Amino acid sequence: MVPHLITALTGPINELEQRILESLPAIERWFRLEWMEHTPPFYTSVDVRNAGYKLAPVDTNLFPSGFNNLTPEMLPLSVQAAMAAIEKICPEAKNLLLIPERDTRNTFYLANVQRLMQVFHMAGLNVRLGTLDADITAPTEIALPDGSALTLEPLLRTRGRLGLKDFDPCTILLNNDLSAGVPPVLAHLHEQYLLPPLHAGWTVRRKSNHFRAYEEVAKKFAKLLGMDPWLINPMFTRVGEVDFGVNGGRDKLMGDAEALLGKVRRKYKEYGIQEKPFIIVKPDAGPAGAGLMTVRDPRDLIDLSRSTRMQKEGRQTVEVILQEGVPTFERVNDAVAEPVVTMIDRYVVGGYYRVNAGRGFDENLDAPGASYVPLAFAESNQLPRSGVKPGASAPNRFYMYGVIARLAMVAASYELEATDPDAEVYE
Amino acid sequence: MVPHLITALTGPINELEQRILESLPAIERWFRLEWMEHTPPFYTSVDVRNAGYKLAPVDTNLFPSGFNNLTPEMLPLSVQAAMAAIEKICPEAKNLLLIPERDTRNTFYLANVQRLMQVFHMAGLNVRLGTLDADITAPTEIALPDGSALTLEPLLRTRGRLGLKDFDPCTILLNNDLSAGVPPVLAHLHEQYLLPPLHAGWTVRRKSNHFRAYEEVAKKFAKLLGMDPWLINPMFTRVGEVDFGVNGGRDKLMGDAEALLGKVRRKYKEYGIQEKPFIIVKPDAGPAGAGLMTVRDPRDLIDLSRSTRMQKEGRQTVEVILQEGVPTFERVNDAVAEPVVTMIDRYVVGGYYRVNAGRGFDENLDAPGASYVPLAFAESNQLPRSGVKPGASAPNRFYMYGVIARLAMVAASYELEATDPDAEVYE
Repeated sequence: MVPHLITALTGPINELEQRILESLPAIERWFRLEWMEHTPPFYTSVDVRNAGYKLAPVDTNLFPSGFNNLTPEMLPLSVQAAMAAIEKICPEAKNLLLIPERDTRNTFYLANVQRLMQVFHMAGLNVRLGTLDADITAPTEIALPDGSALTLEPLLRTRGRLGLKDFDPCTILLNNDLSAGVPPVLAHLHEQYLLPPLHAGWTVRRKSNHFRAYEEVAKKFAKLLGMDPWLINPMFTRVGEVDFGVNGGRDKLMGDAEALLGKVRRKYKEYGIQEKPFIIVKPDAGPAGAGLMTVRDPRDLIDLSRSTRMQKEGRQTVEVILQEGVPTFERVNDAVAEPVVTMIDRYVVGGYYRVNAGRGFDENLDAPGASYVPLAFAESNQLPRSGVKPGASAPNRFYMYGVIARLAMVAASYELEATDPDAEVYE
Repeated sequence: MVPHLITALTGPINELEQRILESLPAIERWFRLEWMEHTPPFYTSVDVRNAGYKLAPVDTNLFPSGFNNLTPEMLPLSVQAAMAAIEKICPEAKNLLLIPERDTRNTFYLANVQRLMQVFHMAGLNVRLGTLDADITAPTEIALPDGSALTLEPLLRTRGRLGLKDFDPCTILLNNDLSAGVPPVLAHLHEQYLLPPLHAGWTVRRKSNHFRAYEEVAKKFAKLLGMDPWLINPMFTRVGEVDFGVNGGRDKLMGDAEALLGKVRRKYKEYGIQEKPFIIVKPDAGPAGAGLMTVRDPRDLIDLSRSTRMQKEGRQTVEVILQEGVPTFERVNDAVAEPVVTMIDRYVVGGYYRVNAGRGFDENLDAPGASYVPLAFAESNQLPRSGVKPGASAPNRFYMYGVIARLAMVAASYELEATDPDAEVYE
């Protein structure tokens, strides 16, 4: 079944699409040169928003959990990319320890874990699951809806290494974003590859670092294509710690919001965009979807102190960023949708749409009510075709999404280098 | 349309399939370790024969010409593998010069060239075609059945480099097996990457070198899996130069054939195989399909001197090898078929069946009357599934074909290292 899909086919995006297609060999070469200097994250998924007048990444996930949303047709691409990744990191590897999220009641998430195990098994590794859940002290089967089961095993930590009973891995793959902090069992694992590294988790990671790096990448890329970087870059402001309990914190937030909205308004005027600008308030740390708020008027923020949405338990202050809101004009069966592009190593291995019928085009879709429609990026029509009218070809559109997602991946690579706590050791 | 396909589902192959599936991570790791020590050919296709009781490669093509037989669904795998290959060889590359076969009247072959250009364009290179045809002195369009066209351009040789007008490539990709010899324009190109290297062409290449290397690879792999290497290795004898004009040459050939048939007979007896053994007479140099002869009785060779099939123009002697015949028990729509596995760099990127209704199960199918049925190695069912009864699962069978084809690719890598004329320079 092919979903009825409406992409935003008007506006400057068509020009951008044409320029991207015409520049395909130059773009791919640009990525090759970037990857000579920088290491791609092990795996990445990027939420992309297509507003018709601009196309931008709004979230870059370094612990992607949507592999179950890829169609089976796409799997060989994942396996091939996983083979390339393993070969670079640890070609002698026999074993891979995968550490999933602690909460395993979500069957969609379990299907994602199962899919990841399948991909890395096919790529040539014995894969087993270790859990951070201290309540699990013996191998425990978790049934899946399809009748199969996953086995979670307790982690075994020795002085320098982490493993399971009779299982000593070369590489430990985290599919856990460490929102709850870095457990001691993962610290100081200098004899094994821990991927992504600990500082990719939300204990250390900050969206402001990511989007600052993305701004740099977008500028470089826009120079290559001779275009305004704003067409692919969502503007943002790092507000810093906001104390929602005192008026001063709120005033600073409102001032920053007014300033950012002003910048967006000027851009809209420059491009003759009739939409009403809006911004998104995001916690600087934390996974996509958590604590997001759409703000159309800074006065909306007055009430924010009454809301607990931005506040973590027992804390009065939250680190906050404001980001230019990028509306999405993509629809799947009339519901608002945004594409999510999945990558392993430097390769786009598939994608899907996040759909949320209960949300507006200017709201976060990664919220209750979201569903996922696999999109066959890997199907016959995945490869871009030249000579097709801009905006008229789904594969060309998907190629463009893959380019923007890979720009965000390059930014994540810059970000991880800049925030590496061990970096000074090598300098 | 899915072709009606009958694979040989009985006999020891099922045991082999089971062992290969159970050993998947160990096998993939084995390949990883091989590729740490050896360089895979740039691209390769391998003809595989499944006799039910054994499964063996019978031809390894280092200038594959069947990319047009891959389904569009498989293309992203080719593009990803091509990206990985380019990145290793020449990441800064902007341009790729592709040199096709000289005879461009075959529209199937032209479709293959078009597909290769498409793959390397998508992988991020400007691709243009240079021809070895001296009659072409200006850019010449060749129309394709689909209404598009290819442009062949005359080669421009400077002292150290080969290119086209206003086109200086980093890499030159040969899709020409050099059966007609090495043209001077390709000699001494030390400033550019010429891939595959000249000694992969039939001027230098010998099947006996390849199958000697394959024997070594098959023994190593059989040791890993704890099995008889004969199950995947076609026995062969290098006869050397045979003078078909004199009786002495014929006698040596008949003696060698009788000896090889005797070895095959003993193996058949050991495994209780009821088939009548046969051998294939092949020229030691030259592409698959050219000059092949099925011999069931050495006395068949008496008449060989009357035939000119083995003789090249103006030559009395031909270098000959004899190879154990591997019958194929695969059928597509009742016609005899054999799988062809296509690889770029170290990756299986697809496959198809060569079908020839006019030929027997013990004959060469790469002959007039052959047609090609794309097989969706890349489709949803491409990935092997554990727990399925051996022989009952097409994806498992295809995984096994991909393993055997990759063993032949490892052998080609050994072979190219051993026959490299410049090798002593580095020793």
